[in-house]
Amino acid sequence: MENLQHTGSFKLRGAANVVASLDADQRRIGVIAPTAGNHGLGLACAGHVAGVPVSIYLPHSADPMKVSAMESYGAQVTFFENIEEARLAAIAAAQQSGATFVSAYNNAQMIAGGGTVGLEIMEEWAEAEVILVNIGGGGLASGVATAIKAINPHAEVWAIQSEASPTFARWKEAGETVPVALSPSIAEGISGYIEPEAMTWPLIRDRVDRVLLVSEAEIKAAMFLMLDLHGHVTEPSGVPAVAAALRYAKTLRGRKTVCVVSGRNISGSRYLKLVNDALI
Amino acid sequence: MENLQHTGSFKLRGAANVVASLDADQRRIGVIAPTAGNHGLGLACAGHVAGVPVSIYLPHSADPMKVSAMESYGAQVTFFENIEEARLAAIAAAQQSGATFVSAYNNAQMIAGGGTVGLEIMEEWAEAEVILVNIGGGGLASGVATAIKAINPHAEVWAIQSEASPTFARWKEAGETVPVALSPSIAEGISGYIEPEAMTWPLIRDRVDRVLLVSEAEIKAAMFLMLDLHGHVTEPSGVPAVAAALRYAKTLRGRKTVCVVSGRNISGSRYLKLVNDALI
Repeated sequence: MENLQHTGSFKLRGAANVVASLDADQRRIGVIAPTAGNHGLGLACAGHVAGVPVSIYLPHSADPMKVSAMESYGAQVTFFENIEEARLAAIAAAQQSGATFVSAYNNAQMIAGGGTVGLEIMEEWAEAEVILVNIGGGGLASGVATAIKAINPHAEVWAIQSEASPTFARWKEAGETVPVALSPSIAEGISGYIEPEAMTWPLIRDRVDRVLLVSEAEIKAAMFLMLDLHGHVTEPSGVPAVAAALRYAKTLRGRKTVCVVSGRNISGSRYLKLVNDALI
Repeated sequence: MENLQHTGSFKLRGAANVVASLDADQRRIGVIAPTAGNHGLGLACAGHVAGVPVSIYLPHSADPMKVSAMESYGAQVTFFENIEEARLAAIAAAQQSGATFVSAYNNAQMIAGGGTVGLEIMEEWAEAEVILVNIGGGGLASGVATAIKAINPHAEVWAIQSEASPTFARWKEAGETVPVALSPSIAEGISGYIEPEAMTWPLIRDRVDRVLLVSEAEIKAAMFLMLDLHGHVTEPSGVPAVAAALRYAKTLRGRKTVCVVSGRNISGSRYLKLVNDALI
């Protein structure tokens, strides 16, 4: 239930780890990250607590609720046409200012932070047999898989992504990084281009047992289920693991299964729109 | 945030206290309660944990999600035409079987259980100046007021109810129990007839500073705010305190204010219906 995590998603774990690992000079100059959402919120909160300046580069399309939350933590926020422009500008700004560039997934400390979710699963339920975890850039999934396999190599880790943005599913299928066609997804936090040199790829390739896909409709249905059965608000990127548990219920029957629910940051009007779709 | 409490509402606190206070004979025979909702869930859970039989008498209109949750805790569930019939039948059954009848509010252990919310508020934020708490039968409000006033007599406790069911507001105004006209409310958990001899009345009269009313529309707006700003599912009976904080924002400005949010048990379809109303 990382939807109940501070800042509303698991991303704070990695961000806190990154900030705690900075040396004195790096702390003084600060960190910079291109992100539309949860990564920026995690970093803004971690920087606020540690007194480290945080600069977030984000697309105009970013959720205003997330933007104002970042600003309330004192982060400096700069807008760009789209996330790719924000990314290139953030890299350039980091080179110029000496600020530490923090990728949401292509960063060992981010991955290790996400991995603490896996450690906690094993602490609480050592008998868990299948762990379902959402995958976008692979930071959470590779961290969780690394932690789980280190403790119990027989436990399976399944990483779940949207059909609309199936990068790791295609790479895993091919056994190598190949070009992947991407479409827009309601789960914006786990969608978009992943660079083939991302350090998460070999970890996902070697430590995640299966990468599975769910549809946009299945993601909305999982959001409705989380509301109806459990009374929890979730965002689309936070529930693919739940959607997969429903799709693969027959395969999972009788197996001790964990779903990692990873976020709840979504504006009220967008939430209602998506979940209403699932009801009809 | 008692919406995040086990069983989805604060009611488990009092129910656990009741069950823990039973003697050996009472534990063996079990408890019985008339309730459509959260009280039944709290009691079912507390009884399940302690191995005490629980019998719930409820109206046909009860939320199926709550009913199946009670059954999953092993409670025996019996249906009646309406809550008043359920109440009378439960009293008769208790007399016949020797089972302990447990009112949701007219019971010192229930009140004391709810009071632990007040103790925790003072532990976490001793400087709190105004505490807003929802009131139905008055179990939570009288418990919270008793705890708060014992620790800091200068802190104010405001109890909030729906305009549609303003029993304590009218009694407080009159300084005595008077007949009160009741209408149906979306906040069914804090609505309906309160017997003038309820032990909560003198506590509310002497220890609660103000009893205030909010409209049905304000309750829906507070549910939307809890979704939009905080990413939390709430039920109508759980948010009048939040609705009042909005209505009396000017009066509360600059005062350290606490709202007790008290429950999240509502079916997904009903939740969407109510919150969609607030959006339009």
